[in-house]
Amino acid sequence: MKNEKAVVIFSGGQDSTTCLFWAIEKFGKENVMAVSFSYGQRHFAELEAATNICGKNGIRHLVLPIDIYSQLEAVPFLNEVQCSLLNNDLEIKQEANSDFPNSFVPYRNLLFLINAAIAAKFFGAENIVIGVSQIDYSGYPDCREEFIRETQNLFKTAMGDDENVVIHTPLIHLTKAETWKMASDLDVLDLVYRETVTCYNGIKGEGCGECPACRIRRQGYLSFLESQK
Amino acid sequence: MKNEKAVVIFSGGQDSTTCLFWAIEKFGKENVMAVSFSYGQRHFAELEAATNICGKNGIRHLVLPIDIYSQLEAVPFLNEVQCSLLNNDLEIKQEANSDFPNSFVPYRNLLFLINAAIAAKFFGAENIVIGVSQIDYSGYPDCREEFIRETQNLFKTAMGDDENVVIHTPLIHLTKAETWKMASDLDVLDLVYRETVTCYNGIKGEGCGECPACRIRRQGYLSFLESQK
Repeated sequence: MKNEKAVVIFSGGQDSTTCLFWAIEKFGKENVMAVSFSYGQRHFAELEAATNICGKNGIRHLVLPIDIYSQLEAVPFLNEVQCSLLNNDLEIKQEANSDFPNSFVPYRNLLFLINAAIAAKFFGAENIVIGVSQIDYSGYPDCREEFIRETQNLFKTAMGDDENVVIHTPLIHLTKAETWKMASDLDVLDLVYRETVTCYNGIKGEGCGECPACRIRRQGYLSFLESQK
Repeated sequence: MKNEKAVVIFSGGQDSTTCLFWAIEKFGKENVMAVSFSYGQRHFAELEAATNICGKNGIRHLVLPIDIYSQLEAVPFLNEVQCSLLNNDLEIKQEANSDFPNSFVPYRNLLFLINAAIAAKFFGAENIVIGVSQIDYSGYPDCREEFIRETQNLFKTAMGDDENVVIHTPLIHLTKAETWKMASDLDVLDLVYRETVTCYNGIKGEGCGECPACRIRRQGYLSFLESQK
């Protein structure tokens, strides 16, 4: 029998909220568990939004702490990773100085996926859902389809021949405008617009309007509205 | 220039202790950092042994907590993973009831490797050392060379084209007897014999003598002695 339970990696942002409702439509609300990770992110407002969305909509939800980044930052003899999403003293720059935007957190999506896979084992689920897109992916290598495919294969190698885990990426080929359309089709456009936090400054809904995340989000929303005319 | 810094995944057992001194010989003590993970393991004596070995020998050492397993075990609506290494109420059985011995912790080595990879980023190291062996590997799928190779490839995909991380597995093709020989060649045979904890009941050195880990360890030691005659 096909396994119909799913764990959704859920940050409380536009993309993962859309994925959460995609999973609820696909698997049924009683078969879905949302997991959010507290990993020392700059904007705690995300986790607050995640908790509110699940609470208001009766969705099973865990907030799990991942302490490795903050633990390592606290070790005096280690160099700090210069990452603006973990370090409040750094200004966020979307343009890469070197290879990545400085908002890239090393190994973050892989750490999320493996923790979600462990949670899935406890929940009895074989499906994991993550809202990465390789269209509007900000230059992060761990948002590409190749990365997801290799991760799924590695999970099977790590767990042995009987492992059937599937990583679902409903947004992988979608633009931001198409993600808005998906929210609309799922009848959660208003919820996603008002209740999610995408803004790098942690402001809910329309956000600060100035940071790269807000600009990408608004451009996508305007393109979506345009396509509906 | 070749990167000469290394992070060693270090449990305080025979295998990882031998690997730690292998790494010190290869990279130099000042370039090595040992990391131990506190993940809710049954035998805390391992971590004590790890700390003592590093303290006595002036080796840089971090103990990092990984809380995901205990966090999930504490969630009432989740089923407990039936794992004897995490759950003190279960008896350890080396023979598999189903696919694995019940001492298998899902995704443990992958979780160790990714946390070590993050620690390596902070330490500025491109080398990770782990003491897995696919000879005496107890049926765990995440001790095989294939798993290590796929993990290294995935780390490069996750981090992008410039990533040069190398996962070293000095014991991968060694029997327990050959691992004792390596300790002897590295001039740490006595240290490994007396100071490490391999025993599932957490007893240092010769251990309880009864559990599967003690039996494998002793058989290996006797074979090593035999080969030296």
